[in-house]
Amino acid sequence: MKITDINITQIAVGDPPLLNAAGLHAPYALRIIVEIITDSGITGLSEIPGSEKIYKALTELKSHLIGQDVFQLHTIKTLINQKFGERDDQRGVAPWDQRLLVHLFSAIEVACLDCIGKKLDRPVVDLLGGRSRNKVPFSAYLFYKYEGAGGALGSDKDTEASGWLRARQEEALSPDQIVDQAKAMCEAFGFQSIKLKGGARPPEIEYESILALRDAFGADTPLRLDPNAIWSLETAIKYGKKMEGILEYYEDPVRGQIDMALLSQKVDIPLATNMCTTSFEDLPASIRLGSEHIILSDHHFWGGLRASMELNKICQTFGRGFSMHSNSHLGISMAAMVHLGAAIPHLDYALDTHYPWQADEVIDGGKIPIIDGFVTVPDGPGLGVTLDREQLQKLHKKFLACGLKERNDEVEMQKVDPQWHFKLQRW
Amino acid sequence: MKITDINITQIAVGDPPLLNAAGLHAPYALRIIVEIITDSGITGLSEIPGSEKIYKALTELKSHLIGQDVFQLHTIKTLINQKFGERDDQRGVAPWDQRLLVHLFSAIEVACLDCIGKKLDRPVVDLLGGRSRNKVPFSAYLFYKYEGAGGALGSDKDTEASGWLRARQEEALSPDQIVDQAKAMCEAFGFQSIKLKGGARPPEIEYESILALRDAFGADTPLRLDPNAIWSLETAIKYGKKMEGILEYYEDPVRGQIDMALLSQKVDIPLATNMCTTSFEDLPASIRLGSEHIILSDHHFWGGLRASMELNKICQTFGRGFSMHSNSHLGISMAAMVHLGAAIPHLDYALDTHYPWQADEVIDGGKIPIIDGFVTVPDGPGLGVTLDREQLQKLHKKFLACGLKERNDEVEMQKVDPQWHFKLQRW
Repeated sequence: MKITDINITQIAVGDPPLLNAAGLHAPYALRIIVEIITDSGITGLSEIPGSEKIYKALTELKSHLIGQDVFQLHTIKTLINQKFGERDDQRGVAPWDQRLLVHLFSAIEVACLDCIGKKLDRPVVDLLGGRSRNKVPFSAYLFYKYEGAGGALGSDKDTEASGWLRARQEEALSPDQIVDQAKAMCEAFGFQSIKLKGGARPPEIEYESILALRDAFGADTPLRLDPNAIWSLETAIKYGKKMEGILEYYEDPVRGQIDMALLSQKVDIPLATNMCTTSFEDLPASIRLGSEHIILSDHHFWGGLRASMELNKICQTFGRGFSMHSNSHLGISMAAMVHLGAAIPHLDYALDTHYPWQADEVIDGGKIPIIDGFVTVPDGPGLGVTLDREQLQKLHKKFLACGLKERNDEVEMQKVDPQWHFKLQRW
Repeated sequence: MKITDINITQIAVGDPPLLNAAGLHAPYALRIIVEIITDSGITGLSEIPGSEKIYKALTELKSHLIGQDVFQLHTIKTLINQKFGERDDQRGVAPWDQRLLVHLFSAIEVACLDCIGKKLDRPVVDLLGGRSRNKVPFSAYLFYKYEGAGGALGSDKDTEASGWLRARQEEALSPDQIVDQAKAMCEAFGFQSIKLKGGARPPEIEYESILALRDAFGADTPLRLDPNAIWSLETAIKYGKKMEGILEYYEDPVRGQIDMALLSQKVDIPLATNMCTTSFEDLPASIRLGSEHIILSDHHFWGGLRASMELNKICQTFGRGFSMHSNSHLGISMAAMVHLGAAIPHLDYALDTHYPWQADEVIDGGKIPIIDGFVTVPDGPGLGVTLDREQLQKLHKKFLACGLKERNDEVEMQKVDPQWHFKLQRW
């Protein structure tokens, strides 16, 4: 099953003004949709975070992939490594900084597995060893935010004035507003655990938000706080001690494995990471230092679905928990996450997803439902999702119109506060 | 693709009187051939080490697997773990001691992957991410031995009086005889690296054999010595120091990770293991101690082909080398080893195989050729081998006639030397 063509389409997806340690989400999140077309008439899909750098590299890669067999993923990985391995491949300080090799391979591998699944008339989960579960648990993902739901004014703005659609537009800066957001989100999607993106408001407010969530949801609803590595070790210890017995896990409160290891000696809460240990190369030091208890995988950042399965085995082997990180994404990434989440033998925590925050969709049938906090593995072969070409064109036009070339939350934040600058450590 | 029946056939394979730390190979090696029959008319094959314990467990497992989908390997693994997990699952002191769960799962997984490959009309290597290479390197595997080629006298005895067929029958107890064996084996199969099974003769003779091999084959032919964990740390250091710069690696000279770690501090030769680190559970301590540089995988002992891929990733991630261990086996196991060997991205050393020592075969077309020390990935779908039913019946009759129920090299050795007993440490 040889690759005969690859369509690479940049799209922009309406995204609310969500606050985080790096600034503010722009009105649009950028994604790239990849379609691999084969000589058997089967087409495979994938979705990855978008940027000019990734788009250019994918476009350059295309001619080298024409003629490759979709089963030869080791060959394709080697080809990508040879072609792009010497370019800058370092992860930056922002949580979404993009590493080329893993993104490129993830884009190709997921689409190839979609092709293979379709050829076999089997879901992708069956290419990963089959189902460890039929539906995959996700966590509510709360953000401090300004008013607004993202996207172009008018056309994308939700008009329904009730429930989650309303809450998604509302300001959330205080503990009470965060509780309102959580209630609306959990009512709409049935989430049974809650993550709060921190690092955006002063630690005292974020801590009070956690306490307010605990009061509102009770001790049976697991809570997580993610300060995005912007707290000092001192701050992380101070508030960590107060949240012992309250947090399910404490995600990247400090920057780097060393401070995570020091924190883990002082605070009795499992530490999770998608910022301090972010690649296979980081794992030996993480294991040696005992810097994190839980690795938050992400197939876009760890190099595909099979690599994520291998990461899961490493976590199991070395006594580490496993869950999943998310950026703003649409249904193709969601489907890939669900197939992976259904396959992995050791799933210890509900997965992250930004999915409720994005009103746009690019797949037929609209957004994949989240029911009681779970997403059921799609029924069809491959990823089980198909492209809505009208939507694809609409979102591509938004990309062309919005003028964004890469994610930059600092620039967006400066539109609100011109003096604001990203800091490696803020509190 | 649901399992409708499973054929489990015990066979006995002619095996020469090979010496090792645990005694002497019996005239027959026991294997079990598994055929998984599906409702799609496709049948999958696998081969595992045989014993009464494994045979009984597989037979007991059969009724639980009928109706299972061959893609649902995580479900099947869970089922096996639930059903057999509480039984004795400890590895004993002999290198081939069998652990139930990994053997059972390996038997089922390989046969299921054979089915999936046939369904897709693709080789098993393509289910593991595709080819990292088209042909897989193997090493010559030398043994000290008594005269004889194993099996029933007459019927199995090789009659050709030249080359490897002659050498396979000859006594090999001295360094010169080992060199003769190596020359015959390398001439017949083109092996480009050489392993000597040690732990059978006094260390001085084994050391002299390595020197004789070095003299005969030159510095460009990698040499390995495997004393099967029967040397003391003192002996291993003494001879290890003398073999620095001569051995490619030093396999399990001592017993246990602690002594391997101590040895690695004293001797500048990479240490390999299939006895001190033999499961995923053993890996954290191996990594922490730095007890071994090279893990010798074996899909029968590590729980299948996908688990071996995961082991390969762990070896890559933690800077360990990877190669493959072997027991006496036929062509189905060889095919599985070759598909795995072709898929693994990081293959650092030529693989072990006992295959040249077994004259019997159970697959159509006779023995898989080893040319210039390499085996080419079989062409057909799945494992690419089919069962010779006449041979299967013949080898099953041998099993019934030979009276062996499990491998016991001590008992065989006592037929030669009634005073001989296995020792954990001999020299």
